[in-house]
Amino acid sequence: MIELAVFGAGRIGNIHALNAAMHPGIRLKYIVDPIPSSQRDKLAETTGAAIVEADAVFADAAISGVIIASSTNTHAELLIKAAEARKAVFCEKPISLDFSTVAKVTAAVEAAGIPCMLGFQRRYDASFRALHDRIASGASGRLEQLTMSSHDPSPPPRSYVETSGGMFRDSTIHDMDMARYLLDEEVATVYAVGACLISEEIGAAGDVDSLMVTLTTASGRMAQITANRRGPMGYDQRLEALCANEVLAIENQPQSMLVRSTPDGRRTAAPENYFIERFRQAYRDEIHALAALIDKGEAPLAGIRDGYEAQRLVEAAIVSMNSGQVVRFGASWVPGGNA
Amino acid sequence: MIELAVFGAGRIGNIHALNAAMHPGIRLKYIVDPIPSSQRDKLAETTGAAIVEADAVFADAAISGVIIASSTNTHAELLIKAAEARKAVFCEKPISLDFSTVAKVTAAVEAAGIPCMLGFQRRYDASFRALHDRIASGASGRLEQLTMSSHDPSPPPRSYVETSGGMFRDSTIHDMDMARYLLDEEVATVYAVGACLISEEIGAAGDVDSLMVTLTTASGRMAQITANRRGPMGYDQRLEALCANEVLAIENQPQSMLVRSTPDGRRTAAPENYFIERFRQAYRDEIHALAALIDKGEAPLAGIRDGYEAQRLVEAAIVSMNSGQVVRFGASWVPGGNA
Amino acid sequence: MIELAVFGAGRIGNIHALNAAMHPGIRLKYIVDPIPSSQRDKLAETTGAAIVEADAVFADAAISGVIIASSTNTHAELLIKAAEARKAVFCEKPISLDFSTVAKVTAAVEAAGIPCMLGFQRRYDASFRALHDRIASGASGRLEQLTMSSHDPSPPPRSYVETSGGMFRDSTIHDMDMARYLLDEEVATVYAVGACLISEEIGAAGDVDSLMVTLTTASGRMAQITANRRGPMGYDQRLEALCANEVLAIENQPQSMLVRSTPDGRRTAAPENYFIERFRQAYRDEIHALAALIDKGEAPLAGIRDGYEAQRLVEAAIVSMNSGQVVRFGASWVPGGNA
Amino acid sequence: MIELAVFGAGRIGNIHALNAAMHPGIRLKYIVDPIPSSQRDKLAETTGAAIVEADAVFADAAISGVIIASSTNTHAELLIKAAEARKAVFCEKPISLDFSTVAKVTAAVEAAGIPCMLGFQRRYDASFRALHDRIASGASGRLEQLTMSSHDPSPPPRSYVETSGGMFRDSTIHDMDMARYLLDEEVATVYAVGACLISEEIGAAGDVDSLMVTLTTASGRMAQITANRRGPMGYDQRLEALCANEVLAIENQPQSMLVRSTPDGRRTAAPENYFIERFRQAYRDEIHALAALIDKGEAPLAGIRDGYEAQRLVEAAIVSMNSGQVVRFGASWVPGGNA
Repeated sequence: MIELAVFGAGRIGNIHALNAAMHPGIRLKYIVDPIPSSQRDKLAETTGAAIVEADAVFADAAISGVIIASSTNTHAELLIKAAEARKAVFCEKPISLDFSTVAKVTAAVEAAGIPCMLGFQRRYDASFRALHDRIASGASGRLEQLTMSSHDPSPPPRSYVETSGGMFRDSTIHDMDMARYLLDEEVATVYAVGACLISEEIGAAGDVDSLMVTLTTASGRMAQITANRRGPMGYDQRLEALCANEVLAIENQPQSMLVRSTPDGRRTAAPENYFIERFRQAYRDEIHALAALIDKGEAPLAGIRDGYEAQRLVEAAIVSMNSGQVVRFGASWVPGGNA
Repeated sequence: MIELAVFGAGRIGNIHALNAAMHPGIRLKYIVDPIPSSQRDKLAETTGAAIVEADAVFADAAISGVIIASSTNTHAELLIKAAEARKAVFCEKPISLDFSTVAKVTAAVEAAGIPCMLGFQRRYDASFRALHDRIASGASGRLEQLTMSSHDPSPPPRSYVETSGGMFRDSTIHDMDMARYLLDEEVATVYAVGACLISEEIGAAGDVDSLMVTLTTASGRMAQITANRRGPMGYDQRLEALCANEVLAIENQPQSMLVRSTPDGRRTAAPENYFIERFRQAYRDEIHALAALIDKGEAPLAGIRDGYEAQRLVEAAIVSMNSGQVVRFGASWVPGGNA
Repeated sequence: MIELAVFGAGRIGNIHALNAAMHPGIRLKYIVDPIPSSQRDKLAETTGAAIVEADAVFADAAISGVIIASSTNTHAELLIKAAEARKAVFCEKPISLDFSTVAKVTAAVEAAGIPCMLGFQRRYDASFRALHDRIASGASGRLEQLTMSSHDPSPPPRSYVETSGGMFRDSTIHDMDMARYLLDEEVATVYAVGACLISEEIGAAGDVDSLMVTLTTASGRMAQITANRRGPMGYDQRLEALCANEVLAIENQPQSMLVRSTPDGRRTAAPENYFIERFRQAYRDEIHALAALIDKGEAPLAGIRDGYEAQRLVEAAIVSMNSGQVVRFGASWVPGGNA
Repeated sequence: MIELAVFGAGRIGNIHALNAAMHPGIRLKYIVDPIPSSQRDKLAETTGAAIVEADAVFADAAISGVIIASSTNTHAELLIKAAEARKAVFCEKPISLDFSTVAKVTAAVEAAGIPCMLGFQRRYDASFRALHDRIASGASGRLEQLTMSSHDPSPPPRSYVETSGGMFRDSTIHDMDMARYLLDEEVATVYAVGACLISEEIGAAGDVDSLMVTLTTASGRMAQITANRRGPMGYDQRLEALCANEVLAIENQPQSMLVRSTPDGRRTAAPENYFIERFRQAYRDEIHALAALIDKGEAPLAGIRDGYEAQRLVEAAIVSMNSGQVVRFGASWVPGGNA
């Protein structure tokens, strides 16, 4: 039986904790969340885990891994501590909002050699996975042009925006990771435009709410991201991979298979409400992957280096948007000057 | 240049007359419609055809064919006259509302040996044709279960209902023809239920507005028709052919490829309004088939015998509905006693 | 904490046992399955339940309910025992293959007044539920014509067919239940045709593999079922409810939202493999409903009487198919003569 | 009766000539094509038009308009001649491959004040038109993000590429026009990337076969184009307009409504083969618009200025691609320096 601790009893912490508790090979032993809340206490009661402080987790030799689902500003320190305590880690993205910290933590985790998996849950979704695997199998031919639509159902509150690191670091990082995962080649250029078209509050907080990004690879292949903070069809996560032999697309997942038809047309059910619902099964599969990582050393679909690289792309996009110029990317680009 | 006359300058007569006039190998010479109307006169002006009486058409040796698109109660006499005058015929369904007349006219036309094509336009539609041809090619395997949905956008006026011969003879005859065309085997049993669920006016006129029919063939294959006079999604003509290797379906044709998405779902454009719009190209193709029949003797997709057989099935369905019993059909069944 | 026992450690017993074990308010205490198997033992190990004999279950006062997922021929006796022991029951369909036994057991369960829920899991599926609730809300207008497609992915082995009670009792009972649930009115007539079009083995076992059923209600509304044992598109469970204001349809659920497009067209992912996958969530929700029934007395979506009535319709369909006649149904029809 | 001449008896010339000949209010009097061909002669025979030289057309006072569908290098001179002869013009895009010529001709046509309509046929397509009109009505809210997919079914021959002006001027001009038409606001920046990913022949001819373009407007709205010369799903012309209230999308139009389902999924019919088939009705509607322009002075959906502006965007995209820089566009940008 794998014994785990979860850091953070918020929305995503709850999901991971419950999935871990329901996994037949995992015992969720500890919950760490310094802020008392009924949500935290209910989670402890439901899962049978004890509420403890962080040090107790790292000091317990029976604990083989930790799930870091606390607020972003705690990720870096917890990753370092986990590396020191030689615990396996499953960490939510991003590693840190500060890129130099991301670089430092990545280096530390890699030096320690601990098993580490990053929370890019789309890689575990049945649809994204089937698409990736088909391309990887060679059946589709070379991926030439990739387009992604990434729209949240409604703008976050200003308070969230202010601590989120901005839309690119908070949200577009998922699209950057998927672009990397599917293109599987060094990115050569990054171009981004952004604007505040939806929410004055977001603009007042210094962020954009709408953006487009174009990437090219060394061999000339192309990727494009269109995203905003209020998708007019609700939560909207689509992707289209134009390959030499076929076009692979991921459509939004409806809440049911009910279709209503009137003289105005044929209407599908609403798409899944938000990421919690859309990726419900992917979150379960992440926990299975964590167990397989700890038990059998099976490599996860996303590791700490993937977190670093996705964020490097995000930083380049921010530089491009702010400067209005194309960023010449490559293996060594880092924000603020070459590495 | 093939010279033709059209009987009837109503809705369907207009369509055929205009399509004939636009066909590069056809000259529409005459329009016959005894009732003066601006629609008739405009049609003559647009097509350059002369308005004459029926006898002038049959007496003109230059006329090689006639299009019978006048009211149903004139079809039988015009078919007989065309047979006597040895003109090719393209006749709208039904041949007559009286089955013994249908039998007599069919025999006369066949005895005369004139080229004759029946207005089952679905057979000429790209979708129905592709489905039929795929089954006929053997690629789909044996057709085992056939289901059809056949819904008008709104109930006809009572005056129409009273002279239409009823929903089965007026409308279901198309579905019966398609069932015969696709099953391509002798029908063994016919069962029909009908009710007046939509329009009290239709009930007052002695007709039903909603019906279901089940057919079986000699080898045990099955077909089913669901129909009503007011489809809640507008004009609704769908079909599903469950074959041994695959299911072939015909969906409704939207008016455009525009799709609107909101948090309530993804909505296609409205379906084509009614048969005029839905089968616009099929009507053009019927005229091409008529020209090929006259010019080159190419067999049409539907002949007079198909009109007879579809109507025989319709009569059996009416007998079943009225009696509440299953009709044992077969090659020799006719309404009122075996032939 | 509700303490439960499950009878039967086969395919469906495993599903219910695991769902019960994962439910936070349920403790699965016992598994009853007289036949030793690795599947049974693994289930006991995973769930922590003890393997005992039936009598131990009924004798344990701490047990508040039982899940009957054993083979069909044991259902009746276990239901009677549960009624005597005053345990709540969740029983898989059918109650028995013998209708007089169904009648007797239904009466006994109702007389005992125990909470009892029948395994018509479609009622718990998000799509069927949304459709039912929308009709029940009045928003769709009156349901006028109902059509159902019900196709298994591949024929069962002959051994299964021989003990299944035949396709109607084994499979069509689900469609009959859904027809009753949605029409919510007394059925007036039942007509069924069946044939062996797919599998000679099934024919040799005396069963059909393809069928169509037509139902009418007292007010003239209509329902139709098309079913076979080998759907050419795999597991195929669709339904279309033509109501006065709109058409509600349930499409098959694809395994993912991946769509592949080539010059040959646009292709969705395969449908869910079989009922286990298609109704995965519905089975979870049944266990939630069972807990709510036991804890709070909340009525289940399907009770023992629904099992009785669906089977009465099935028996009428079999009589119709065998006789080639329409069965005049009604509140009092029972096979072999009026009740 | 409007009397017209057509220049060019090639593929697109044939389409316009036949549509004009079939229009009840138009007489196609002349065909001008200096190169004898059976296609030209057959067109003359079918339409009844005489084959003449260009001067005869401009000298004939009865001719009220000309259709310029000859090769691109003749457009400018014919437009100038039409302006001098005061004939209405319907001219295929592009006006010229040389931007300074485009500017000169546009000025001349506008100075002459002749009715002039450009061949951006997508504006006349039912789907694009419905989308445009819905946005223009205000019902969709502000268009925020526009994405377009524009893929030819297969690469053109090298000979075509060499005289086409390149993919941007030949093909992307349609997408640029649609972006302008829908955004209806001054473009602020243009960014383009291109590569040769498909056809070495195209690369050898100095052109690209794959490209992406990003536009921003003065108010921060965004548009994106993804295009290549060999769409893996055949001819692929889709568009998605993300507006404040809803997402409007145009899907590809299938050749029929036939859907084939197997255990591998549900497959629609192939998309329309190429622009000839996809825009068949739009080409008809262009001729109707030409008649309305000549007869009633009704403004066409696209005029000479639209041709000029779309080409200006194309030139900016080429500058961006070649320089690897973002082009600051605006009302006065012209290639080679500000106007």
